[in-house]
Amino acid sequence: MDDDDRVFQDGGVVIEGDRIKALGQSSHILHQFAVVATQIIDLHGHIVLPGLNFSLSCFILILIGFINTHVHTSQQLARGIADDVDLMTWLHGRIWPYESNMTEEDSYISTLLCGIELIHSGVTCFAEAGGQHVSGMARAVELLGLRACLTQSTMDAGEGLPSSWAARTADDCIQSQKQNYEKHHNTADGRIRVWFGIRQIMNSTDRLLLETRDAARELKTGIHMHVAEIPYENQLVMDVHKVNHGTVTYLEKIGFLQNNLLSAHTVWVDDSEISFLSRAGVKVSHCPAAAMRMLGFAPVREMLDAGICVSLGTDGAPSNNRMSIVDEMYIASLINKGREVFANGTTDPTALPAETILKMVTINGAKSVLWDNELGSLEVDKKADIIVVNPSSWTMIPVHDCISSLVYCMRTENVVSVMCNGKWIMKDKKIQTVDEEEVISKAKQASVDLLKRAGIRLPSKMNFI
Amino acid sequence: MDDDDRVFQDGGVVIEGDRIKALGQSSHILHQFAVVATQIIDLHGHIVLPGLNFSLSCFILILIGFINTHVHTSQQLARGIADDVDLMTWLHGRIWPYESNMTEEDSYISTLLCGIELIHSGVTCFAEAGGQHVSGMARAVELLGLRACLTQSTMDAGEGLPSSWAARTADDCIQSQKQNYEKHHNTADGRIRVWFGIRQIMNSTDRLLLETRDAARELKTGIHMHVAEIPYENQLVMDVHKVNHGTVTYLEKIGFLQNNLLSAHTVWVDDSEISFLSRAGVKVSHCPAAAMRMLGFAPVREMLDAGICVSLGTDGAPSNNRMSIVDEMYIASLINKGREVFANGTTDPTALPAETILKMVTINGAKSVLWDNELGSLEVDKKADIIVVNPSSWTMIPVHDCISSLVYCMRTENVVSVMCNGKWIMKDKKIQTVDEEEVISKAKQASVDLLKRAGIRLPSKMNFI
Repeated sequence: MDDDDRVFQDGGVVIEGDRIKALGQSSHILHQFAVVATQIIDLHGHIVLPGLNFSLSCFILILIGFINTHVHTSQQLARGIADDVDLMTWLHGRIWPYESNMTEEDSYISTLLCGIELIHSGVTCFAEAGGQHVSGMARAVELLGLRACLTQSTMDAGEGLPSSWAARTADDCIQSQKQNYEKHHNTADGRIRVWFGIRQIMNSTDRLLLETRDAARELKTGIHMHVAEIPYENQLVMDVHKVNHGTVTYLEKIGFLQNNLLSAHTVWVDDSEISFLSRAGVKVSHCPAAAMRMLGFAPVREMLDAGICVSLGTDGAPSNNRMSIVDEMYIASLINKGREVFANGTTDPTALPAETILKMVTINGAKSVLWDNELGSLEVDKKADIIVVNPSSWTMIPVHDCISSLVYCMRTENVVSVMCNGKWIMKDKKIQTVDEEEVISKAKQASVDLLKRAGIRLPSKMNFI
Repeated sequence: MDDDDRVFQDGGVVIEGDRIKALGQSSHILHQFAVVATQIIDLHGHIVLPGLNFSLSCFILILIGFINTHVHTSQQLARGIADDVDLMTWLHGRIWPYESNMTEEDSYISTLLCGIELIHSGVTCFAEAGGQHVSGMARAVELLGLRACLTQSTMDAGEGLPSSWAARTADDCIQSQKQNYEKHHNTADGRIRVWFGIRQIMNSTDRLLLETRDAARELKTGIHMHVAEIPYENQLVMDVHKVNHGTVTYLEKIGFLQNNLLSAHTVWVDDSEISFLSRAGVKVSHCPAAAMRMLGFAPVREMLDAGICVSLGTDGAPSNNRMSIVDEMYIASLINKGREVFANGTTDPTALPAETILKMVTINGAKSVLWDNELGSLEVDKKADIIVVNPSSWTMIPVHDCISSLVYCMRTENVVSVMCNGKWIMKDKKIQTVDEEEVISKAKQASVDLLKRAGIRLPSKMNFI
């Protein structure tokens, strides 16, 4: 994922502290560093048979860690509470009651559970999409050993809000986020950054939008916002603000679009809005699974063609169910090849090829979280955020094309070990930083208690006896 | 999956030989059968805490085995040979050279490798989509302990065929399939059935179509055919046969549509063609991942509304890469909810709900393979094809809605054990019938040899050094 797209077929990496000190052909690396190394890890593991081609010798792969640029860690305890229901039931009947009844401890446990899933899918860094208690998230991220840009869910307007949220003003929202920034930004050995959040335009006054823009600029941090999710949103913006298209047109008009904005989803945008985003250097997080289920087909090809940095996100557990960036790569490919039917009459199997998708979850992810000076590629002096993949299983064999196998065949089963900031946080599929069983047990209890508190009851599918 | 959609919250199953002898509440089952049972397996494993709701006590689930109604077992060694290429390169440059160079041993090894993936994803029965050497497939299926409807790939016409295939006549094709039937039908303790195959209309003379219809009727077996895959196919049929729409219209016209036809993909069909399929009792295998990548959006909702039995298939490894019916359920949901954008302007999150998808991979699968008198539901006297799922992991927790969790959250990791025909073929994730490592090792070698023999060379993605 460096500028030259280099793939070492027999490579080695030297790590010192939290950074990559050197990388190259393993023979060179061993020659130069073997005598001074504290520890040498041979990830080879198998004998290379002479005469066989590359596809057979690539049994262990070392990659830069994946970056999930849109995930609601606070929603992990809500997995399965809003399946197969319409959007209004989803929001007003399930998600808002759930989120507005969360305690700080719930955010902590939810983030722990979500973090376990992220690590198992090879994620070393994520951008929180906007959740309830940043302090709870931060406690969990510190413990898990992950890297994250944490964001509070922020709203100061809108219909049907739970009473505990309805009284919040723009000032309250900015104040609370500045406090989060002061308390948590650059903590956990620099693994945690705090961003500003805007839930969505329908829950934001202009004042909140503009003060968020200015505060983020002043503190040199990012803004994470859900943008142009559904046609209704665009229509409302057109009606209220008298612009000729939707949210992006209005955000352009008020000068909100900046290169520190991470625009999630961004499904319902037209060509001129794509130009606005591109010109302003806005980054887009494409979440194909959630978009399929709830929103629509984002114009990913058009956005990439316009030079926009598009990365991948899983969204939250009640919108997608799987928080696996590995599955999201596979789905991004399928959906964007299929989407061409509606433009051209047939699918285009060449659309969004594997190498593009791999960039979306690595270097584009790093640019999206404004951290590409230290993340997103295996390069000297970048952070040692590394994953180890074993493709020698029934999930991936045979591996005729390493790059497409990683994107289309790999599953979470194949992610063996994960290092973040120079420390192993998963080894041989065992999380090193928290006790998985204990988190699962706490999460079961907390989620039942939370649903009860929020008064959410799910109808039974099928005939339980 | 019985007629009453019953789900036992604390159930038990009695198995005698290859069949289900009884099922019901576990207390009743234990009371009635504990003294006569040779073995009692407690799949509970955890303590049920009093006072917690159902979602917490469903930690082990017993389901009827899944049925994958469209899978090319002969193509497993070709996984990754045709990613991100256009359709003509896919077919003429990769798949035909690959398949036409397969030996009987290749079909055997390919089916073994594919079967391992099928078992890990909870499949107990599959319908082969039409491959090269039925004897090789049959050897593998017998050894694996799976159940299957095996089909030879059959063509007697068409442009650009490899020379070894081009000389085949309709008589050769029928003859060869009748021999397969005589030799392999109802073998492996009745686990193997032999079907007739039609690759696709563009590779079939009318004579082959009609003689296949008659031979299958005479032998009381099924026909598996790729139908209405791409707009080009329909256009060709219209041009050549002077009908007003595509393949299905022509098949109706010549009297080919019967209730023993399993019509794969069936993407490009109009309303009147859906009526033809429904009236004839044709079954449809929907393969959402492959369709997204190569074909288009099948009108699944419309076909189900018209009373057509629609089941799910994975297609082959070069069309999809993952042969996981578990992932296919998840993708079926996403794609069919998303497809509504193009009809109605927005996605419909209520479309194709979880319980419908679960039926597609169980009872509808059984009907599709003409075996629902013995398969597809946990019912007394049906075959003991059973899978055990453990949802108590980071992939599925919390489980607020058992049914949607199975469809949207479950991954192959959660499939613990698989029984087919009363015998455990996987226990605690370990395949009992073949040595996985040995198959993987053989498959690596065979696939490299086969590509070399076929003269297939893949261009390198990215910059390998």
